[in-house]
Amino acid sequence: MDNPVITLGERGDKSALEEKCVLTPKFDADGLIPAVAMDAETKEPLMLAYMNEKSLLMTLELGEAVYYSRSRQEIWHKGATSGHVQKVKEIRTDCDQDALILYVEQLGAGACHTGRSSCFYRKVSLDDGRDPAALSFTQADLTFDPKAVYHDK
Amino acid sequence: MDNPVITLGERGDKSALEEKCVLTPKFDADGLIPAVAMDAETKEPLMLAYMNEKSLLMTLELGEAVYYSRSRQEIWHKGATSGHVQKVKEIRTDCDQDALILYVEQLGAGACHTGRSSCFYRKVSLDDGRDPAALSFTQADLTFDPKAVYHDK
Repeated sequence: MDNPVITLGERGDKSALEEKCVLTPKFDADGLIPAVAMDAETKEPLMLAYMNEKSLLMTLELGEAVYYSRSRQEIWHKGATSGHVQKVKEIRTDCDQDALILYVEQLGAGACHTGRSSCFYRKVSLDDGRDPAALSFTQADLTFDPKAVYHDK
Repeated sequence: MDNPVITLGERGDKSALEEKCVLTPKFDADGLIPAVAMDAETKEPLMLAYMNEKSLLMTLELGEAVYYSRSRQEIWHKGATSGHVQKVKEIRTDCDQDALILYVEQLGAGACHTGRSSCFYRKVSLDDGRDPAALSFTQADLTFDPKAVYHDK
């Protein structure tokens, strides 16, 4: 049986956006909304990307994260080529519905094209290296070989 | 003693952005970068807002989250009026340095102007209510009275 049609609601006033139970996301002037993928188990942030309306509806239909690639200007089904699919466990939205959080099960060795489990593998060194501000690695070692996974990069 | 000057690095090539230890954030066409505040202890997402270069440097100087309000078009020192300051414990950036994660200690009763601890208090109902897609509350009860805290809203 086909899935029932999924649609998004129409945006109402501030009170409706904040207190009602209809998904009425706000897409920006470029038709995009930021979406942060987080590991559903560890709650570690994996990546921040963007969705347009079509990719959000595909995400809801498939149960897998589908983004919109701003650099390639196309729908980006995460993991379609690498196998590093993100199975969606929960999607949250915020008060004014202009941001999304996806709790996902990250398949494969990691989310980041550099070969790490998370894109957020560096932190700002708050106590030194201020001119310019320095970073330090929170995860230095690669968890997979990006050349073997992303053949065309 | 005054703090030493904090500056941001100049953006280099892809390899430098991804593998070097200099903070070289990418601000978008509007001069903004998305910043997700997360509770440093529980790892729960609190809010997603934006920073411009000045507010990011102020955040680094103060050790408290300073955003740029797109609606008010001004620097927004979170908690300056409400007392709900976010003490910055750690700042992460991602591979191409166009997103920030702030792990914070949220002072006061919560991050959200609606009176809740987090702005992400609703989740998408993935299994029902699909036309239009429905939300359900993950945190229904208020943790503070927004009228008492935000007098001018």
